[in-house]
Amino acid sequence: MLCAETNIRVRYGETDKMGYLYYGHYPAYFEVARTDLIRMFGFTYKQIEDQGIILPVRSLKIDYILPARYDDMLTVKACLHELPAVKLDISYEIRNANHDLICTGHTILVFADQITGKPRRAPAYFVEAVKGYFE
Amino acid sequence: MLCAETNIRVRYGETDKMGYLYYGHYPAYFEVARTDLIRMFGFTYKQIEDQGIILPVRSLKIDYILPARYDDMLTVKACLHELPAVKLDISYEIRNANHDLICTGHTILVFADQITGKPRRAPAYFVEAVKGYFE
Amino acid sequence: MLCAETNIRVRYGETDKMGYLYYGHYPAYFEVARTDLIRMFGFTYKQIEDQGIILPVRSLKIDYILPARYDDMLTVKACLHELPAVKLDISYEIRNANHDLICTGHTILVFADQITGKPRRAPAYFVEAVKGYFE
Amino acid sequence: MLCAETNIRVRYGETDKMGYLYYGHYPAYFEVARTDLIRMFGFTYKQIEDQGIILPVRSLKIDYILPARYDDMLTVKACLHELPAVKLDISYEIRNANHDLICTGHTILVFADQITGKPRRAPAYFVEAVKGYFE
Repeated sequence: MLCAETNIRVRYGETDKMGYLYYGHYPAYFEVARTDLIRMFGFTYKQIEDQGIILPVRSLKIDYILPARYDDMLTVKACLHELPAVKLDISYEIRNANHDLICTGHTILVFADQITGKPRRAPAYFVEAVKGYFE
Repeated sequence: MLCAETNIRVRYGETDKMGYLYYGHYPAYFEVARTDLIRMFGFTYKQIEDQGIILPVRSLKIDYILPARYDDMLTVKACLHELPAVKLDISYEIRNANHDLICTGHTILVFADQITGKPRRAPAYFVEAVKGYFE
Repeated sequence: MLCAETNIRVRYGETDKMGYLYYGHYPAYFEVARTDLIRMFGFTYKQIEDQGIILPVRSLKIDYILPARYDDMLTVKACLHELPAVKLDISYEIRNANHDLICTGHTILVFADQITGKPRRAPAYFVEAVKGYFE
Repeated sequence: MLCAETNIRVRYGETDKMGYLYYGHYPAYFEVARTDLIRMFGFTYKQIEDQGIILPVRSLKIDYILPARYDDMLTVKACLHELPAVKLDISYEIRNANHDLICTGHTILVFADQITGKPRRAPAYFVEAVKGYFE
Protein backbone atom coordinates (compact mmCIF):
# COMPACT_ATOMS: atom_id res chain seq x y z
CA MET A 1 0.00 0.00 0.00
CA LEU A 2 1.26 3.41 -1.01
CA CYS A 3 -0.22 6.57 0.49
CA ALA A 4 0.10 10.35 0.20
CA GLU A 5 -1.45 13.13 2.25
CA THR A 6 -2.67 16.51 1.07
CA ASN A 7 -3.97 19.46 3.07
CA ILE A 8 -7.04 21.25 1.77
CA ARG A 9 -8.77 24.13 3.50
CA VAL A 10 -12.55 24.27 3.04
CA ARG A 11 -13.45 27.30 0.91
CA TYR A 12 -16.45 29.49 1.66
CA GLY A 13 -18.09 28.66 -1.66
CA GLU A 14 -17.74 24.95 -0.91
CA THR A 15 -20.03 25.19 2.11
CA ASP A 16 -23.78 24.94 1.74
CA LYS A 17 -26.66 26.49 3.68
CA MET A 18 -26.31 23.82 6.39
CA GLY A 19 -22.85 25.34 6.97
CA TYR A 20 -21.21 22.05 5.93
CA LEU A 21 -18.76 21.23 3.17
CA TYR A 22 -21.26 20.26 0.43
CA TYR A 23 -21.28 16.51 -0.21
CA GLY A 24 -20.65 17.09 -3.91
CA HIS A 25 -17.22 18.66 -3.33
CA TYR A 26 -15.61 15.57 -1.80
CA PRO A 27 -14.88 14.01 -5.21
CA ALA A 28 -12.82 17.10 -6.15
CA TYR A 29 -10.87 16.78 -2.87
CA PHE A 30 -10.17 13.13 -3.70
CA GLU A 31 -8.94 14.19 -7.12
CA VAL A 32 -6.49 16.69 -5.61
CA ALA A 33 -5.21 13.98 -3.27
CA ARG A 34 -4.70 11.35 -5.97
CA THR A 35 -2.97 13.96 -8.16
CA ASP A 36 -0.52 14.50 -5.31
CA LEU A 37 -0.18 10.73 -4.85
CA ILE A 38 0.81 10.42 -8.52
CA ARG A 39 3.16 13.41 -8.20
CA MET A 40 5.02 11.41 -5.54
CA PHE A 41 5.92 8.82 -8.19
CA GLY A 42 8.09 11.35 -10.02
CA PHE A 43 5.68 12.45 -12.75
CA THR A 44 2.32 14.19 -12.92
CA TYR A 45 -1.17 13.29 -14.00
CA LYS A 46 -0.85 16.17 -16.47
CA GLN A 47 2.14 14.47 -18.08
CA ILE A 48 0.18 11.23 -18.40
CA GLU A 49 -2.55 13.10 -20.27
CA ASP A 50 -0.03 14.98 -22.39
CA GLN A 51 1.15 11.57 -23.58
CA GLY A 52 -2.32 10.66 -24.81
CA ILE A 53 -3.60 8.64 -21.86
CA ILE A 54 -6.63 9.66 -19.83
CA LEU A 55 -7.88 8.26 -16.55
CA PRO A 56 -11.65 8.57 -16.38
CA VAL A 57 -13.32 7.58 -13.12
CA ARG A 58 -15.27 4.33 -13.33
CA SER A 59 -16.73 4.24 -9.84
CA LEU A 60 -16.93 6.34 -6.69
CA LYS A 61 -18.01 5.52 -3.18
CA ILE A 62 -18.13 7.84 -0.19
CA ASP A 63 -19.23 7.32 3.39
CA TYR A 64 -19.84 10.64 5.10
CA ILE A 65 -19.13 10.32 8.81
CA LEU A 66 -18.79 13.82 10.28
CA PRO A 67 -19.43 17.21 8.67
CA ALA A 68 -16.51 19.44 7.67
CA ARG A 69 -17.02 23.18 7.98
CA TYR A 70 -15.83 26.43 6.49
CA ASP A 71 -12.13 27.17 6.97
CA ASP A 72 -11.42 23.70 8.41
CA MET A 73 -7.96 22.50 7.43
CA LEU A 74 -8.53 18.93 6.25
CA THR A 75 -6.03 16.19 5.54
CA VAL A 76 -6.91 13.97 2.62
CA LYS A 77 -5.06 10.68 2.53
CA ALA A 78 -5.03 8.74 -0.76
CA CYS A 79 -3.76 5.16 -0.88
CA LEU A 80 -3.01 2.93 -3.85
CA HIS A 81 -3.81 -0.66 -2.94
CA GLU A 82 -2.36 -2.72 -5.74
CA LEU A 83 -0.01 -2.49 -8.67
CA PRO A 84 -2.10 -0.93 -11.47
CA ALA A 85 -2.69 -3.01 -14.60
CA VAL A 86 -5.65 -1.45 -16.43
CA LYS A 87 -7.14 0.40 -13.48
CA LEU A 88 -6.16 2.52 -10.51
CA ASP A 89 -7.79 1.42 -7.28
CA ILE A 90 -7.49 4.21 -4.69
CA SER A 91 -9.00 4.65 -1.24
CA TYR A 92 -9.32 7.89 0.69
CA GLU A 93 -9.70 9.16 4.22
CA ILE A 94 -10.39 12.76 5.15
CA ARG A 95 -9.63 13.95 8.67
CA ASN A 96 -9.97 17.37 10.28
CA ALA A 97 -7.40 19.16 12.45
CA ASN A 98 -8.57 17.15 15.51
CA HIS A 99 -7.88 13.92 13.58
CA ASP A 100 -11.62 13.14 13.52
CA LEU A 101 -12.54 10.98 10.57
CA ILE A 102 -14.74 13.05 8.23
CA CYS A 103 -15.23 10.46 5.52
CA THR A 104 -13.86 7.42 3.79
CA GLY A 105 -13.97 6.97 0.05
CA HIS A 106 -12.92 4.84 -2.86
CA THR A 107 -12.47 5.39 -6.58
CA ILE A 108 -11.62 3.16 -9.51
CA LEU A 109 -10.05 4.88 -12.51
CA VAL A 110 -9.25 3.19 -15.79
CA PHE A 111 -6.38 3.90 -18.13
CA ALA A 112 -7.79 4.78 -21.56
CA ASP A 113 -6.58 6.09 -24.88
CA GLN A 114 -7.34 9.81 -25.23
CA ILE A 115 -8.37 9.52 -28.88
CA THR A 116 -10.29 6.23 -29.01
CA GLY A 117 -11.49 6.33 -25.41
CA LYS A 118 -10.71 2.60 -25.23
CA PRO A 119 -9.25 1.04 -22.07
CA ARG A 120 -5.54 0.19 -22.21
CA ARG A 121 -2.83 -0.98 -19.86
CA ALA A 122 -1.04 1.41 -17.50
CA PRO A 123 2.01 2.89 -19.24
CA ALA A 124 5.27 1.04 -18.50
CA TYR A 125 6.88 4.01 -16.70
CA PHE A 126 3.89 4.15 -14.35
CA VAL A 127 4.13 0.50 -13.41
CA GLU A 128 7.91 0.83 -13.12
CA ALA A 129 7.64 3.79 -10.75
CA VAL A 130 5.13 2.07 -8.51
CA LYS A 131 6.07 -1.57 -8.51
CA GLY A 132 8.83 -1.28 -5.91
CA TYR A 133 6.14 -0.50 -3.35
CA PHE A 134 4.21 -3.69 -4.00
CA GLU A 135 6.98 -6.26 -3.82
CA MET B 1 -40.97 2.31 -5.85
CA LEU B 2 -41.59 5.98 -6.52
CA CYS B 3 -39.65 7.82 -9.24
CA ALA B 4 -39.30 11.31 -10.70
CA GLU B 5 -37.39 12.53 -13.72
CA THR B 6 -35.56 15.83 -14.15
CA ASN B 7 -33.86 17.29 -17.22
CA ILE B 8 -30.46 18.91 -16.74
CA ARG B 9 -28.36 20.35 -19.53
CA VAL B 10 -24.59 20.04 -19.01
CA ARG B 11 -23.08 23.50 -18.46
CA TYR B 12 -19.79 24.55 -20.00
CA GLY B 13 -18.17 25.06 -16.62
CA GLU B 14 -19.19 21.55 -15.59
CA THR B 15 -17.02 19.98 -18.29
CA ASP B 16 -13.35 19.27 -17.69
CA LYS B 17 -10.34 19.27 -20.01
CA MET B 18 -11.26 15.77 -21.24
CA GLY B 19 -14.44 17.43 -22.56
CA TYR B 20 -16.55 15.30 -20.22
CA LEU B 21 -18.99 16.27 -17.50
CA TYR B 22 -16.59 16.22 -14.52
CA TYR B 23 -17.19 13.24 -12.25
CA GLY B 24 -17.56 15.50 -9.23
CA HIS B 25 -20.68 17.21 -10.60
CA TYR B 26 -22.86 14.10 -10.64
CA PRO B 27 -23.73 14.40 -6.93
CA ALA B 28 -25.17 17.88 -7.59
CA TYR B 29 -27.28 16.45 -10.42
CA PHE B 30 -28.56 13.75 -8.06
CA GLU B 31 -29.44 16.44 -5.54
CA VAL B 32 -31.49 18.36 -8.12
CA ALA B 33 -33.32 15.14 -9.05
CA ARG B 34 -34.14 14.15 -5.47
CA THR B 35 -35.31 17.71 -4.76
CA ASP B 36 -37.76 17.31 -7.65
CA LEU B 37 -38.75 13.88 -6.35
CA ILE B 38 -39.63 15.42 -2.99
CA ARG B 39 -41.44 18.30 -4.72
CA MET B 40 -43.73 15.67 -6.26
CA PHE B 41 -44.95 14.74 -2.76
CA GLY B 42 -46.58 18.16 -2.38
CA PHE B 43 -43.91 19.96 -0.33
CA THR B 44 -40.29 20.98 -0.83
CA TYR B 45 -36.96 20.10 0.67
CA LYS B 46 -36.68 23.78 1.54
CA GLN B 47 -39.86 23.55 3.64
CA ILE B 48 -38.47 20.53 5.47
CA GLU B 49 -35.38 22.54 6.39
CA ASP B 50 -37.45 25.59 7.33
CA GLN B 51 -39.16 23.33 9.90
CA GLY B 52 -35.85 22.50 11.54
CA ILE B 53 -35.06 19.18 9.90
CA ILE B 54 -31.98 18.63 7.75
CA LEU B 55 -31.14 15.70 5.51
CA PRO B 56 -27.35 15.27 5.37
CA VAL B 57 -26.02 12.63 2.98
CA ARG B 58 -24.65 9.55 4.72
CA SER B 59 -23.36 7.62 1.71
CA LEU B 60 -22.92 8.02 -2.03
CA LYS B 61 -22.16 5.51 -4.75
CA ILE B 62 -21.77 6.17 -8.46
CA ASP B 63 -20.92 3.90 -11.37
CA TYR B 64 -19.82 5.93 -14.36
CA ILE B 65 -20.73 4.10 -17.56
CA LEU B 66 -20.52 6.54 -20.48
CA PRO B 67 -19.25 10.12 -20.55
CA ALA B 68 -21.69 13.02 -20.78
CA ARG B 69 -20.58 16.06 -22.74
CA TYR B 70 -21.12 19.79 -22.92
CA ASP B 71 -24.68 20.85 -23.84
CA ASP B 72 -26.01 17.29 -23.58
CA MET B 73 -29.57 17.28 -22.31
CA LEU B 74 -29.59 14.60 -19.61
CA THR B 75 -32.49 12.94 -17.85
CA VAL B 76 -31.88 12.17 -14.20
CA LYS B 77 -34.27 9.66 -12.71
CA ALA B 78 -34.48 9.45 -8.92
CA CYS B 79 -36.35 6.59 -7.22
CA LEU B 80 -37.34 6.11 -3.61
CA HIS B 81 -37.23 2.43 -2.75
CA GLU B 82 -38.90 2.16 0.60
CA LEU B 83 -41.04 4.08 3.00
CA PRO B 84 -38.59 6.34 4.89
CA ALA B 85 -38.24 5.84 8.63
CA VAL B 86 -34.99 7.52 9.69
CA LYS B 87 -33.32 7.56 6.30
CA LEU B 88 -34.03 8.24 2.64
CA ASP B 89 -32.75 5.54 0.34
CA ILE B 90 -32.68 6.85 -3.23
CA SER B 91 -31.26 5.40 -6.46
CA TYR B 92 -30.47 7.32 -9.63
CA GLU B 93 -30.02 6.76 -13.34
CA ILE B 94 -28.76 9.35 -15.77
CA ARG B 95 -29.45 8.94 -19.50
CA ASN B 96 -28.62 11.16 -22.46
CA ALA B 97 -30.94 12.16 -25.31
CA ASN B 98 -30.23 8.81 -27.05
CA HIS B 99 -31.38 6.99 -23.89
CA ASP B 100 -27.83 5.70 -23.34
CA LEU B 101 -27.18 4.99 -19.69
CA ILE B 102 -24.56 7.48 -18.47
CA CYS B 103 -24.41 6.37 -14.86
CA THR B 104 -26.21 4.73 -11.99
CA GLY B 105 -26.02 6.01 -8.45
CA HIS B 106 -27.29 5.66 -4.94
CA THR B 107 -27.49 7.90 -1.89
CA ILE B 108 -28.58 7.41 1.69
CA LEU B 109 -29.71 10.55 3.52
CA VAL B 110 -30.67 10.70 7.18
CA PHE B 111 -33.28 12.86 8.84
CA ALA B 112 -31.60 14.95 11.53
CA ASP B 113 -32.44 17.81 13.84
CA GLN B 114 -31.03 21.09 12.52
CA ILE B 115 -29.92 22.33 15.94
CA THR B 116 -28.60 19.19 17.63
CA GLY B 117 -27.53 17.41 14.42
CA LYS B 118 -28.97 14.21 15.93
CA PRO B 119 -30.80 11.67 13.74
CA ARG B 120 -34.57 11.60 14.09
CA ARG B 121 -37.55 9.98 12.40
CA ALA B 122 -38.99 11.30 9.15
CA PRO B 123 -41.68 13.91 9.92
CA ALA B 124 -45.22 12.51 9.95
CA TYR B 125 -46.38 14.57 6.95
CA PHE B 126 -43.51 13.12 4.90
CA VAL B 127 -44.42 9.54 5.73
CA GLU B 128 -48.07 10.35 5.17
CA ALA B 129 -47.42 11.80 1.71
CA VAL B 130 -45.33 8.87 0.61
CA LYS B 131 -46.89 5.84 2.22
CA GLY B 132 -49.65 5.40 -0.36
CA TYR B 133 -46.97 4.46 -2.87
CA PHE B 134 -45.60 1.63 -0.75
CA GLU B 135 -48.75 -0.25 0.16
CA MET C 1 -30.63 44.85 -28.79
CA LEU C 2 -31.38 41.17 -28.80
CA CYS C 3 -32.33 39.34 -25.59
CA ALA C 4 -33.13 35.84 -24.35
CA GLU C 5 -34.39 34.63 -20.99
CA THR C 6 -33.49 31.43 -19.18
CA ASN C 7 -34.90 29.99 -15.96
CA ILE C 8 -32.44 28.55 -13.46
CA ARG C 9 -33.37 27.15 -10.08
CA VAL C 10 -30.76 27.65 -7.34
CA ARG C 11 -29.25 24.28 -6.38
CA TYR C 12 -28.49 23.36 -2.78
CA GLY C 13 -24.78 23.03 -3.47
CA GLU C 14 -24.73 26.52 -4.98
CA THR C 15 -25.72 28.11 -1.68
CA ASP C 16 -23.12 29.02 0.92
CA LYS C 17 -23.21 29.11 4.71
CA MET C 18 -24.92 32.53 4.60
CA GLY C 19 -27.77 30.68 2.86
CA TYR C 20 -27.23 32.76 -0.28
CA LEU C 21 -26.43 31.74 -3.83
CA TYR C 22 -22.61 31.97 -3.65
CA TYR C 23 -21.27 35.00 -5.55
CA GLY C 24 -18.95 32.77 -7.57
CA HIS C 25 -21.81 30.88 -9.24
CA TYR C 26 -23.28 33.88 -11.05
CA PRO C 27 -20.77 33.63 -13.93
CA ALA C 28 -21.98 30.05 -14.63
CA TYR C 29 -25.58 31.31 -14.69
CA PHE C 30 -24.57 34.01 -17.17
CA GLU C 31 -22.92 31.34 -19.31
CA VAL C 32 -26.11 29.26 -19.38
CA ALA C 33 -28.09 32.36 -20.41
CA ARG C 34 -25.74 33.38 -23.21
CA THR C 35 -25.69 29.79 -24.48
CA ASP C 36 -29.48 30.00 -24.76
CA LEU C 37 -29.19 33.42 -26.40
CA ILE C 38 -26.91 31.92 -29.07
CA ARG C 39 -29.25 28.92 -29.43
CA MET C 40 -31.97 31.39 -30.43
CA PHE C 41 -29.90 32.32 -33.50
CA GLY C 42 -30.38 28.83 -34.95
CA PHE C 43 -27.07 27.22 -33.97
CA THR C 44 -25.30 26.38 -30.72
CA TYR C 45 -22.16 27.48 -28.95
CA LYS C 46 -21.11 23.84 -29.15
CA GLN C 47 -21.29 23.95 -32.95
CA ILE C 48 -19.14 27.10 -32.99
CA GLU C 49 -16.48 25.25 -30.98
CA ASP C 50 -16.80 22.15 -33.15
CA GLN C 51 -15.84 24.39 -36.08
CA GLY C 52 -12.60 25.41 -34.40
CA ILE C 53 -13.63 28.72 -32.86
CA ILE C 54 -13.59 29.37 -29.14
CA LEU C 55 -15.04 32.28 -27.20
CA PRO C 56 -12.94 32.89 -24.09
CA VAL C 57 -14.22 35.54 -21.67
CA ARG C 58 -12.16 38.72 -21.69
CA SER C 59 -13.94 40.63 -18.91
CA LEU C 60 -16.68 40.17 -16.35
CA LYS C 61 -18.53 42.64 -14.20
CA ILE C 62 -21.28 41.90 -11.66
CA ASP C 63 -23.22 44.16 -9.33
CA TYR C 64 -24.90 42.10 -6.61
CA ILE C 65 -28.10 43.80 -5.51
CA LEU C 66 -30.21 41.29 -3.55
CA PRO C 67 -29.35 37.78 -2.39
CA ALA C 68 -30.82 34.76 -4.16
CA ARG C 69 -31.61 31.73 -2.01
CA TYR C 70 -31.89 27.97 -2.26
CA ASP C 71 -34.66 26.72 -4.55
CA ASP C 72 -35.40 30.23 -5.89
CA MET C 73 -36.48 30.09 -9.52
CA LEU C 74 -34.45 32.83 -11.17
CA THR C 75 -34.82 34.38 -14.60
CA VAL C 76 -31.55 35.27 -16.27
CA LYS C 77 -31.87 37.71 -19.15
CA ALA C 78 -28.94 37.99 -21.56
CA CYS C 79 -28.82 40.79 -24.15
CA LEU C 80 -26.50 41.31 -27.09
CA HIS C 81 -25.93 45.01 -27.60
CA GLU C 82 -24.22 45.28 -30.91
CA LEU C 83 -23.43 43.33 -34.02
CA PRO C 84 -20.38 41.22 -33.10
CA ALA C 85 -17.18 41.83 -35.03
CA VAL C 86 -14.32 40.33 -32.98
CA LYS C 87 -16.09 40.30 -29.64
CA LEU C 88 -19.43 39.50 -28.05
CA ASP C 89 -20.66 42.22 -25.74
CA ILE C 90 -23.44 40.82 -23.54
CA SER C 91 -25.28 42.24 -20.54
CA TYR C 92 -27.28 40.29 -17.97
CA GLU C 93 -30.03 40.80 -15.44
CA ILE C 94 -31.12 38.20 -12.91
CA ARG C 95 -34.55 38.48 -11.29
CA ASN C 96 -36.34 36.25 -8.80
CA ALA C 97 -39.95 35.05 -8.96
CA ASN C 98 -41.11 38.37 -7.45
CA HIS C 99 -39.34 40.22 -10.28
CA ASP C 100 -36.87 41.71 -7.78
CA LEU C 101 -33.59 42.55 -9.45
CA ILE C 102 -30.92 40.21 -7.99
CA CYS C 103 -27.96 41.42 -10.02
CA THR C 104 -26.80 43.06 -13.20
CA GLY C 105 -23.77 41.86 -15.11
CA HIS C 106 -21.70 42.24 -18.21
CA THR C 107 -19.24 40.06 -20.11
CA ILE C 108 -17.02 40.59 -23.12
CA LEU C 109 -16.05 37.43 -25.02
CA VAL C 110 -13.65 37.35 -27.95
CA PHE C 111 -13.77 35.08 -30.96
CA ALA C 112 -10.49 33.14 -31.15
CA ASP C 113 -8.96 30.32 -33.12
CA GLN C 114 -9.05 27.07 -31.11
CA ILE C 115 -5.56 25.99 -32.16
CA THR C 116 -3.58 29.24 -32.19
CA GLY C 117 -5.66 30.97 -29.51
CA LYS C 118 -5.43 34.14 -31.63
CA PRO C 119 -8.39 36.53 -31.89
CA ARG C 120 -10.32 36.43 -35.15
CA ARG C 121 -13.52 37.85 -36.59
CA ALA C 122 -16.94 36.37 -35.82
CA PRO C 123 -17.77 33.65 -38.37
CA ALA C 124 -19.89 34.87 -41.30
CA TYR C 125 -22.89 32.67 -40.39
CA PHE C 126 -22.93 34.20 -36.91
CA VAL C 127 -22.97 37.76 -38.21
CA GLU C 128 -25.54 36.76 -40.82
CA ALA C 129 -27.86 35.24 -38.21
CA VAL C 130 -27.69 38.25 -35.95
CA LYS C 131 -27.46 41.24 -38.22
CA GLY C 132 -31.17 41.47 -38.96
CA TYR C 133 -31.69 42.48 -35.33
CA PHE C 134 -29.32 45.43 -35.53
CA GLU C 135 -30.53 47.17 -38.67
CA MET D 1 -1.92 49.40 0.75
CA LEU D 2 -1.83 46.03 2.44
CA CYS D 3 -1.34 42.82 0.45
CA ALA D 4 -1.20 39.06 0.97
CA GLU D 5 -0.32 36.27 -1.42
CA THR D 6 -1.82 32.79 -1.62
CA ASN D 7 -0.82 29.84 -3.76
CA ILE D 8 -3.59 27.86 -5.43
CA ARG D 9 -3.05 24.95 -7.77
CA VAL D 10 -5.66 24.59 -10.55
CA ARG D 11 -7.76 21.47 -9.95
CA TYR D 12 -8.82 19.15 -12.76
CA GLY D 13 -12.49 19.80 -12.16
CA GLU D 14 -11.87 23.55 -12.39
CA THR D 15 -10.77 23.29 -16.01
CA ASP D 16 -13.28 23.35 -18.84
CA LYS D 17 -13.35 21.70 -22.25
CA MET D 18 -11.07 24.43 -23.63
CA GLY D 19 -8.51 23.12 -21.14
CA TYR D 20 -8.54 26.46 -19.30
CA LEU D 21 -9.37 27.31 -15.72
CA TYR D 22 -13.09 28.09 -16.14
CA TYR D 23 -13.80 31.83 -15.87
CA GLY D 24 -16.39 31.18 -13.17
CA HIS D 25 -13.83 29.80 -10.69
CA TYR D 26 -11.79 32.99 -10.38
CA PRO D 27 -14.21 34.50 -7.81
CA ALA D 28 -13.59 31.49 -5.53
CA TYR D 29 -9.82 32.00 -5.88
CA PHE D 30 -10.25 35.66 -4.94
CA GLU D 31 -12.24 34.57 -1.90
CA VAL D 32 -9.46 32.25 -0.75
CA ALA D 33 -6.94 35.08 -1.18
CA ARG D 34 -8.95 37.66 0.75
CA THR D 35 -9.57 35.11 3.51
CA ASP D 36 -5.80 34.77 3.84
CA LEU D 37 -5.42 38.55 3.73
CA ILE D 38 -7.81 38.84 6.69
CA ARG D 39 -6.02 35.97 8.48
CA MET D 40 -2.87 38.14 8.35
CA PHE D 41 -4.61 40.70 10.59
CA GLY D 42 -4.70 38.21 13.47
CA PHE D 43 -8.26 36.94 13.18
CA THR D 44 -10.29 35.03 10.59
CA TYR D 45 -13.25 35.71 8.40
CA LYS D 46 -14.91 32.82 10.19
CA GLN D 47 -14.54 34.60 13.53
CA ILE D 48 -16.11 37.74 12.06
CA GLU D 49 -19.14 35.68 11.00
CA ASP D 50 -19.27 33.89 14.34
CA GLN D 51 -19.70 37.33 15.91
CA GLY D 52 -22.78 38.01 13.82
CA ILE D 53 -21.27 40.05 10.99
CA ILE D 54 -21.36 38.92 7.36
CA LEU D 55 -19.51 40.34 4.38
CA PRO D 56 -21.60 39.83 1.24
CA VAL D 57 -19.99 40.82 -2.05
CA ARG D 58 -21.47 43.96 -3.58
CA SER D 59 -19.50 44.06 -6.84
CA LEU D 60 -16.99 42.02 -8.80
CA LYS D 61 -14.83 42.89 -11.77
CA ILE D 62 -12.37 40.63 -13.56
CA ASP D 63 -10.16 41.21 -16.59
CA TYR D 64 -8.98 37.89 -17.99
CA ILE D 65 -5.57 38.33 -19.61
CA LEU D 66 -4.02 34.89 -20.13
CA PRO D 67 -5.51 31.43 -19.61
CA ALA D 68 -4.49 29.35 -16.61
CA ARG D 69 -4.34 25.60 -17.10
CA TYR D 70 -4.70 22.36 -15.16
CA ASP D 71 -2.09 21.84 -12.44
CA ASP D 72 -0.70 25.38 -12.82
CA MET D 73 0.50 26.74 -9.50
CA LEU D 74 -0.97 30.21 -9.34
CA THR D 75 -0.22 33.07 -6.97
CA VAL D 76 -3.21 35.15 -6.02
CA LYS D 77 -2.35 38.54 -4.56
CA ALA D 78 -5.09 40.38 -2.66
CA CYS D 79 -4.62 44.02 -1.63
CA LEU D 80 -6.67 46.20 0.66
CA HIS D 81 -6.58 49.79 -0.59
CA GLU D 82 -8.07 51.82 2.17
CA LEU D 83 -9.05 51.67 5.80
CA PRO D 84 -12.46 49.94 5.80
CA ALA D 85 -15.42 51.90 7.11
CA VAL D 86 -18.58 50.15 5.86
CA LYS D 87 -16.99 48.28 2.95
CA LEU D 88 -13.91 46.29 2.04
CA ASP D 89 -12.33 47.40 -1.22
CA ILE D 90 -9.92 44.69 -2.41
CA SER D 91 -8.00 44.28 -5.67
CA TYR D 92 -6.48 41.05 -6.98
CA GLU D 93 -3.78 39.86 -9.34
CA ILE D 94 -3.27 36.25 -10.36
CA ARG D 95 0.09 35.19 -11.80
CA ASN D 96 1.36 31.81 -12.92
CA ALA D 97 4.72 30.22 -12.09
CA ASN D 98 6.38 32.24 -14.89
CA HIS D 99 5.05 35.43 -13.28
CA ASP D 100 2.78 36.02 -16.28
CA LEU D 101 -0.25 38.06 -15.32
CA ILE D 102 -3.32 35.82 -15.67
CA CYS D 103 -5.93 38.32 -14.54
CA THR D 104 -6.67 41.39 -12.48
CA GLY D 105 -9.77 41.72 -10.38
CA HIS D 106 -11.61 43.82 -7.87
CA THR D 107 -14.33 43.20 -5.29
CA ILE D 108 -16.29 45.41 -2.95
CA LEU D 109 -17.71 43.70 0.14
CA VAL D 110 -19.96 45.35 2.70
CA PHE D 111 -20.12 44.72 6.42
CA ALA D 112 -23.67 43.67 7.32
CA ASP D 113 -25.57 42.36 10.31
CA GLN D 114 -26.13 38.60 10.00
CA ILE D 115 -29.70 38.74 11.31
CA THR D 116 -31.09 41.93 9.77
CA GLY D 117 -28.88 41.87 6.66
CA LYS D 118 -28.47 45.65 7.11
CA PRO D 119 -25.12 47.35 6.36
CA ARG D 120 -23.10 48.40 9.40
CA ARG D 121 -19.65 49.74 10.17
CA ALA D 122 -16.58 47.50 10.27
CA PRO D 123 -16.12 46.14 13.82
CA ALA D 124 -13.70 48.17 15.95
CA TYR D 125 -11.16 45.32 16.26
CA PHE D 126 -11.00 45.09 12.47
CA VAL D 127 -10.29 48.79 12.01
CA GLU D 128 -7.83 48.64 14.90
CA ALA D 129 -5.91 45.74 13.35
CA VAL D 130 -5.68 47.37 9.96
CA LYS D 131 -5.30 51.06 10.64
CA GLY D 132 -1.57 50.99 11.33
CA TYR D 133 -1.03 50.12 7.68
CA PHE D 134 -2.85 53.18 6.42
CA GLU D 135 -1.24 55.92 8.49
